Amino acid sequence: MIRAPHIYYEKNNLMVEGVMVEKIINEVGTPAYIYSKSSFIDQLKQLKDAFKDYSAIICYSIKACHNTNIIKIFVNEGCGLDIVSGGELYRALKASVDPRKIVYSGVGKTSREITESINAGILMFNVESEQELERINRIGSSLNNKAPVSIRVNPGVDAKTHPYITTGMKENKFGIDSGKVIDIFRLASKMSNIEVCGIDVHLGSQLLNPKPYGEAMKIIAGYVKQLKDENIDIRYVDVGGGLGISYKEEQQAVSVQEYASLITESFIDIPGITFILEPGRFLTAQAGILVARVQYVKDNLYGKRFVIVDTGMHHLIRPPLYGGYHSIIPVRKKSDVRIKADVVGPICESTDFLGKKCLLEEVYQDDLLAVTDTGAYGIVLASHYNSHSLPVEVLVDGAGFKIIRQKETYEDLLYGELT
Amino acid sequence: MIRAPHIYYEKNNLMVEGVMVEKIINEVGTPAYIYSKSSFIDQLKQLKDAFKDYSAIICYSIKACHNTNIIKIFVNEGCGLDIVSGGELYRALKASVDPRKIVYSGVGKTSREITESINAGILMFNVESEQELERINRIGSSLNNKAPVSIRVNPGVDAKTHPYITTGMKENKFGIDSGKVIDIFRLASKMSNIEVCGIDVHLGSQLLNPKPYGEAMKIIAGYVKQLKDENIDIRYVDVGGGLGISYKEEQQAVSVQEYASLITESFIDIPGITFILEPGRFLTAQAGILVARVQYVKDNLYGKRFVIVDTGMHHLIRPPLYGGYHSIIPVRKKSDVRIKADVVGPICESTDFLGKKCLLEEVYQDDLLAVTDTGAYGIVLASHYNSHSLPVEVLVDGAGFKIIRQKETYEDLLYGELT
Repeated sequence: MIRAPHIYYEKNNLMVEGVMVEKIINEVGTPAYIYSKSSFIDQLKQLKDAFKDYSAIICYSIKACHNTNIIKIFVNEGCGLDIVSGGELYRALKASVDPRKIVYSGVGKTSREITESINAGILMFNVESEQELERINRIGSSLNNKAPVSIRVNPGVDAKTHPYITTGMKENKFGIDSGKVIDIFRLASKMSNIEVCGIDVHLGSQLLNPKPYGEAMKIIAGYVKQLKDENIDIRYVDVGGGLGISYKEEQQAVSVQEYASLITESFIDIPGITFILEPGRFLTAQAGILVARVQYVKDNLYGKRFVIVDTGMHHLIRPPLYGGYHSIIPVRKKSDVRIKADVVGPICESTDFLGKKCLLEEVYQDDLLAVTDTGAYGIVLASHYNSHSLPVEVLVDGAGFKIIRQKETYEDLLYGELT
Repeated sequence: MIRAPHIYYEKNNLMVEGVMVEKIINEVGTPAYIYSKSSFIDQLKQLKDAFKDYSAIICYSIKACHNTNIIKIFVNEGCGLDIVSGGELYRALKASVDPRKIVYSGVGKTSREITESINAGILMFNVESEQELERINRIGSSLNNKAPVSIRVNPGVDAKTHPYITTGMKENKFGIDSGKVIDIFRLASKMSNIEVCGIDVHLGSQLLNPKPYGEAMKIIAGYVKQLKDENIDIRYVDVGGGLGISYKEEQQAVSVQEYASLITESFIDIPGITFILEPGRFLTAQAGILVARVQYVKDNLYGKRFVIVDTGMHHLIRPPLYGGYHSIIPVRKKSDVRIKADVVGPICESTDFLGKKCLLEEVYQDDLLAVTDTGAYGIVLASHYNSHSLPVEVLVDGAGFKIIRQKETYEDLLYGELT
């Protein structure tokens, strides 16, 4: 579906900002991920506007789309960054972000990653377990440094009333259970190389109903008050990410204003709070398309049509892995006739599909198709399965475009192999 | 589960052939894929023995584990190769295989890939659609060459009686429906730049019951006779791959002798047939382990334990993508106490697990664990998700070992990016 105003048709040609997609493909080939810079910035502006009356740091969640060129766009717009690995710290520093705007989340931080992050001077670690807290304290001590931390809370918001949160939070590897939260804060506040400064929560992914945020924030605000009473000073409230986008016609985009209200209203009477937001999908998903060329159209005797393209699960795994839906549209509109088809890739297994029973405009061999809303959790999950090269990545900025990741050659497939 | 005789415990230490796994890890770090050369060769020997009285070419299916060093092992043992992309053709030629032992399968062959394969002089294309046949003929003509082809048949073996074959073969993108097979062969035999030489079938993956092979071969033998009557000479019968392995205690390994009998018995009265086998998983799965280090052990208030390691879905996606099971065992046995735990990775989503409710020997922070049976569909599906580096790959040969893919650095994560 095209919701980004910068991706549109002009005289039946698909455009990204001022550039014909077909023109880009003529230069770079298929498959190709193409991103619109203005779309990134438009989405960011919505969040900035909604939080303009509050102290807030928008930390782009690198994992959604980790090309350094894209990280730089957000850094240049004043964003901080949400990282989840040493590799992402490396990317963040390459993008010249102020390290004091980096928050580090994730359940598996290694000693090396913690050491590098303390040395870089990040804003804070979102701590996910007691053992992690102890490890950070130990490393802080060995570095003669105090590590800033926030504790990630599993708020236990009732999943039944909010279907986008996975059922059974107790089945979940993330965060600290509600029943343990205050004890962990007390423990942390007594550690000699830990500086407690924040509290963190993350509800899940692709939330289109913002109400669970309000519910969780009531719980978090309660903790913050209790901790302040105990002289544990919480300055940062990290509300995580999870803000959804509409992949389907019938999905309504979330109201960012309502989201901001629900997050902030529980903190009206608590001074000195800075909100940390960790949007990923919300900022990048709708800004990207994955363009492929039709290799074959194949009808079977049971009335089923397959459109076989030169990309698939190795470049976009959301359809088979998450049941993700992406509408698939022509790069050049030629017909109003609609057909039903499975759009599949070249990988030798039935798992390899981009869409099943898609309603497409009639397509022929060698046509170009665009898989929409693929700016998040697309290229970052790509593999070299079946020894296919990764797609080229292109960034469009106004009337111009540039390659931000070059097309791979066969030689690149052997990168790192030793014989 | 350890079935490969070359992976075993000695004085409570996990060994691969003559080498302690812990010793390898001390040199190369974690995470690491470690493969046993003798295990590859043992599995191959089973197939060779079973088909020793027949004309047969065992074509290793590169997609199961595509490191060039591993391909070379099979080539040096006399194998041909089953490829599914131009990238795999490149790897195959790098491994110095005789091109006349390469078969090329897959629904999405591009013009470039077809051109390269004709020029390389491969044994045959397994053709999956009428449009593909036409494209190959066209390219053959432009190259002034005759392209050898086999037609891939969808045999319509009743899925209900054979649960490992996906239900509804008509939902399947592969091959030519039974009702069209003879027509396509007639069409192909009249094309000026096509040389019909084979017939191909592939039933599915991870089959532990060989009976469907017998059923399919009856159908195929019928076609071969009918085609011979029409002077269309079928010399190669490609039986595909799909031979399963036992990932779980209760799974019985397939009898390779029975498999060979079921395949060959329908062709006893048809002279001049060479069988092509395309084993992948069967040759490599049990020869590989993925070794990880425990980062944290975390208990929640609901009695659930999480063992958080430094590898996950980004290095081995079979558990979340296919519901694949891999037993997880200690690199050094220390205790007979068993615990139940989810073994999860560092990726920031609930999809990231290696095993749920695993029965493990008691584990502690910094212990090493081995995820077994990961020599197939492991590293080949790995991604850089969350900007984690790919694991190092190590090949053990007797008392020695060598790195066959080096550990990635942070710099490697930016490979190909242009700024």
